[in-house]
Amino acid sequence: MSGFHLNLSLMTPGHFRHAWRRDHADPLAYLDIDYFQRLARIAEAAKIDAVFLGDGPALRGEIEEAPGTGIDPLVLLGNLAAVTENLGVVITSSTTYNSPYNLARRFQALDHVTKGRAAVNIVTTGTPAAAANFGLSEHPDKETRYRRAWEFLDVVTRLWDSWESEWLVADKESGHYADLGKIHPIDHEGEFFSVAGPLPVAPGPQGRPVVVQAGGSEGGLTLAGDFADVVFTVAQTRAKAVAFRNDIRRRAAAAGRHPDDVKISLGVVVLVEATEEQARRREQELYDRLPIERLTAALLTNLGLPQDSFGPDDPIGADDLPETLPAGAFSTGFGISTRALIAEGPRTPRELVQRGAGGSGHRLVVGSAEQVADDLAEWFEAGTADGFTVMPAETAVDLPNFTELVVPILQERGLFQKEYAAPTLRERFGLPFPHRERAADSLPA
Amino acid sequence: MSGFHLNLSLMTPGHFRHAWRRDHADPLAYLDIDYFQRLARIAEAAKIDAVFLGDGPALRGEIEEAPGTGIDPLVLLGNLAAVTENLGVVITSSTTYNSPYNLARRFQALDHVTKGRAAVNIVTTGTPAAAANFGLSEHPDKETRYRRAWEFLDVVTRLWDSWESEWLVADKESGHYADLGKIHPIDHEGEFFSVAGPLPVAPGPQGRPVVVQAGGSEGGLTLAGDFADVVFTVAQTRAKAVAFRNDIRRRAAAAGRHPDDVKISLGVVVLVEATEEQARRREQELYDRLPIERLTAALLTNLGLPQDSFGPDDPIGADDLPETLPAGAFSTGFGISTRALIAEGPRTPRELVQRGAGGSGHRLVVGSAEQVADDLAEWFEAGTADGFTVMPAETAVDLPNFTELVVPILQERGLFQKEYAAPTLRERFGLPFPHRERAADSLPA
Repeated sequence: MSGFHLNLSLMTPGHFRHAWRRDHADPLAYLDIDYFQRLARIAEAAKIDAVFLGDGPALRGEIEEAPGTGIDPLVLLGNLAAVTENLGVVITSSTTYNSPYNLARRFQALDHVTKGRAAVNIVTTGTPAAAANFGLSEHPDKETRYRRAWEFLDVVTRLWDSWESEWLVADKESGHYADLGKIHPIDHEGEFFSVAGPLPVAPGPQGRPVVVQAGGSEGGLTLAGDFADVVFTVAQTRAKAVAFRNDIRRRAAAAGRHPDDVKISLGVVVLVEATEEQARRREQELYDRLPIERLTAALLTNLGLPQDSFGPDDPIGADDLPETLPAGAFSTGFGISTRALIAEGPRTPRELVQRGAGGSGHRLVVGSAEQVADDLAEWFEAGTADGFTVMPAETAVDLPNFTELVVPILQERGLFQKEYAAPTLRERFGLPFPHRERAADSLPA
Repeated sequence: MSGFHLNLSLMTPGHFRHAWRRDHADPLAYLDIDYFQRLARIAEAAKIDAVFLGDGPALRGEIEEAPGTGIDPLVLLGNLAAVTENLGVVITSSTTYNSPYNLARRFQALDHVTKGRAAVNIVTTGTPAAAANFGLSEHPDKETRYRRAWEFLDVVTRLWDSWESEWLVADKESGHYADLGKIHPIDHEGEFFSVAGPLPVAPGPQGRPVVVQAGGSEGGLTLAGDFADVVFTVAQTRAKAVAFRNDIRRRAAAAGRHPDDVKISLGVVVLVEATEEQARRREQELYDRLPIERLTAALLTNLGLPQDSFGPDDPIGADDLPETLPAGAFSTGFGISTRALIAEGPRTPRELVQRGAGGSGHRLVVGSAEQVADDLAEWFEAGTADGFTVMPAETAVDLPNFTELVVPILQERGLFQKEYAAPTLRERFGLPFPHRERAADSLPA
């Protein structure tokens, strides 16, 4: 069995968003490039495969209570790539609010300047407020967004393939620099885009930057099977994770790909200390920072229940819930997994709010370094994933804790790499080099 | 008199595009981040204010004969900013083929991660081929492009101003993080754009990134007077440069700005060696690399003359030229200045091709370090500019030559800085900090 991959989320102050209220926390850390560079160097020293940042092109109202993301992740992670040598960067970009030519070009440039460490995490943007920043009267519906995303990725992939690898002539005597016969327009005309191509510059070391995809809807799964090199996902149980992975592998095979050519990276929120007791104590301190009354109100809204119908410590049972799930529930950190928890048995708003606010819908693992390492090893061995995207509960604390305490255990067990085995992220993820010539050959002359 | 500013163009292989054919030249240098990082470090050691790259979002047919730009300059210069501490980065971006929200956000992010060294060089894109990469059946005409650019810069500026500087609350006790009363939507509805705002994150150290503008048409001059902090320009004579500078200062004053708040940076192609003889010898070697027959044919087309009507060494007089100037002439490196030269007296295609191919329409200065320093000092003292954008003839040679040979002379004469006087590019250029509060106050409550 080959070892697993580890990515680290740099979301600051952490996946416990109210962590900025802790005594030691710098409330402006997410605007501080020195802070991020320190984290990137720590991650690289631990041989982490890549760092990751989510994104959405709009201000979120939650800023009243907690800092979020907001800095363009291409710019931020591009900077971190420049001060590291092996660390990959997984950069979230919207297919709804970008043009495919600019995006393809930008990530190809990043692949050149990082020497093959660029990955794009394709999202369709779930924040309705984004639409008004881009001249749309309303946010396109999910089905439309995913139809656009499919065409977007088709165009981007063909643009990345628009130069064959034998394009360079560079004959100083004759003055012939490039063979235009090896550089092909794509002449795409589709529902959403009309793009002539080719890109203005040759492909970088990876051929194509790594494509990551994260949505779990039918449209997202189709995208994953057809285009994704890596799929980020969420699962609260091993059975669900295994089923998801098998489904994605089947979809990739159905699209004519080898099932091993798509890797699953499972999100997990980690809160880790040397001992379980210390970890539990810090978890409680983080919960104490939650505005429990406001979050209970938000939870009730998300569950479709009247305000004040339940207090923070009143159990809610499955019979109390309305039949249909409100729209947009996941984006607030509540929703599907919350309902699943209630289905298992009655839960109080406090329990659910703590789960939601901590994990943002992802599985939360709290414990000693040994416990966290055991957890990841067991989930990996159960076939749930090809690796994990670790989301620190408090980034400034749990990222160093994870790399210093958990990673050495995983390395000692032979699960995680002790050295970077290859220069490019694509090779490290065990992904094939794209067949550029084949793609180019299929184009009209 | 305050000292002047110096920017360096990183265009590779250089402003003599056929320089890739020289024996020592690496034909793939423009794809090599290590090469660019070396140049950036050399520039920073010489206290150069900023490095610059042009851009256009399309492949140009000239690639058959010479490498061009092509790598997204935001990605490339972002990387160079990350490996330097004081060097500014002037990044060309198209207002025709970007959305203002994404661009405003990206440069604001760059301002954060560079700690105030970000500048955007606004262009409307003169390459017709770009249109087909962005779903347009034809490239918008110049007047439309500049009308769009004006609205684009208006939106971008207001987005940069959308957060007042007192936005942060960060009260750990109450959990109140940001004062939403200090963060304003812009609610722009215009001819080209509808943008709600605000940006998702607070302004960076410069308040607004530095805005550079380069077009010399009436639309470009209006843009310069209303929005530009720095104007890049071209002039073959001191009288024209002085007149241009005075015109821009008048326009800024007419727009309610202080004339000193817009700086003129004059482009100059530099070929420099320790002695004039060495410089002239290298100039001749570069001319010898020009495909003279093909370029003569291109020149005749650009002058509106029949093919084969003049050989490379046949003089063309003013009487030989048709009345009207062909469109798009400047973009090929011939055109206005070529006609102006012919107006002064008959010139052969060889002379004109050498001027065009070397200077790309910019003034070419060839000589010893003393001669180049004298030239720049004289032009500066004549009131032609607030500084220069030095465009190396051969980047790999003339950039180091300029910084090592010419800069020390300018420093000794008290014209150019010996140390970086301030951390941000805006302060170093002597530009005012934008009045964010005033802009915010003028918004509806």
